[in-house]
Amino acid sequence: MLLYDYFRSSAAYRVRIALNLKGLAPERAFVHLRRGAQRDDAYLGVNPHGLIPALVLDDGTVLTQSMAIIEYLDETHPSPPLLPREPVARARVRALALAVVADTHPLGNLRVLQHLQGAAGFDMERRDAWYAHWIDVGLTGLEADLARDAARGRFCHGDTPTLADCCVVPQLANARRAKLDVARWPVLAAIDAACNELPAFAAAAPARQPDAE
Amino acid sequence: MLLYDYFRSSAAYRVRIALNLKGLAPERAFVHLRRGAQRDDAYLGVNPHGLIPALVLDDGTVLTQSMAIIEYLDETHPSPPLLPREPVARARVRALALAVVADTHPLGNLRVLQHLQGAAGFDMERRDAWYAHWIDVGLTGLEADLARDAARGRFCHGDTPTLADCCVVPQLANARRAKLDVARWPVLAAIDAACNELPAFAAAAPARQPDAE
Repeated sequence: MLLYDYFRSSAAYRVRIALNLKGLAPERAFVHLRRGAQRDDAYLGVNPHGLIPALVLDDGTVLTQSMAIIEYLDETHPSPPLLPREPVARARVRALALAVVADTHPLGNLRVLQHLQGAAGFDMERRDAWYAHWIDVGLTGLEADLARDAARGRFCHGDTPTLADCCVVPQLANARRAKLDVARWPVLAAIDAACNELPAFAAAAPARQPDAE
Repeated sequence: MLLYDYFRSSAAYRVRIALNLKGLAPERAFVHLRRGAQRDDAYLGVNPHGLIPALVLDDGTVLTQSMAIIEYLDETHPSPPLLPREPVARARVRALALAVVADTHPLGNLRVLQHLQGAAGFDMERRDAWYAHWIDVGLTGLEADLARDAARGRFCHGDTPTLADCCVVPQLANARRAKLDVARWPVLAAIDAACNELPAFAAAAPARQPDAE
């Protein structure tokens, strides 16, 4: 397998965590997002959406979208499981993941920030306020959701990490980069701390990647 | 079951299609998004994220996030299947769905448009340009993705509708509302036409809902 990766991509970070939890170590190719390498023809041939990550299987099949890749890894390498077995519990874990993947992260994606600064004429201050606003909205909703739910344990769902934790930890890293105080979300901060005690999470962090700057 | 719904919510529209394909007809409660009913305490008690849809099961369990709900429906009511059985094919369908759910739709969500007009000071023209831009980016990527893929058939994946079609059709409806010419994406337009020939899709359209205005 070959993972198209970028150290600071929050979506790639999710997949790195899942790969580590599964004990898988694919080869890696680094696509420099800030230099626009995701829009080069070479990469668009891999993923026409021009987004990271992509996972190329040994037969050449290209998988895209972090959450679809993690579900694939879980179906083909079932141990340890990243989703519970019971349908309501699976829906819960997927909904927590999607609160990051669909409702929070897309609004702060690099191409969105670049568009705000370009076509929309935002200065850095307004750009940063936008970025912080949507992280705040997303994480505040997620905190309320988790705080009231007895299915939460040491991790988002019970006492082993799941797909939801693979998505929450990179989003909290983004919040910290935006200088938001994660102590505002104590439930999420505790889950994040529990995750980062595990080598699979720690080794996936942006600063620990070969392409980190 | 009880579905919290709103006729114009693209995420709720996805779930309505899936319910119809499964032959399920839950009770419905309508949450008027334009009047802000999703931010009332009554609804935040159901879904602390303040987003539509939510599906309440007969035991009171609340499921949120359209894609998590559709996966739940597929796991608990397997016929007709909305995901293929083979892991690579499942990843493909989920990635197509996520290209809408995570990369396209969130940028044109009502709360984002309201924020652009409020805090960011966009006038209607700039707001509409933003909305059209991200639909264009998302659908152009999806078109390129589908156009090159032999797994495509009459629908996004083969000749029966899947989760991906449940997501694509509402996004094309949004494109039309934004006065974009969907003929620019001929593969998507053909899939959309095939879907809308099916009663399950046609009956889920916004204009056919009891709360339509």
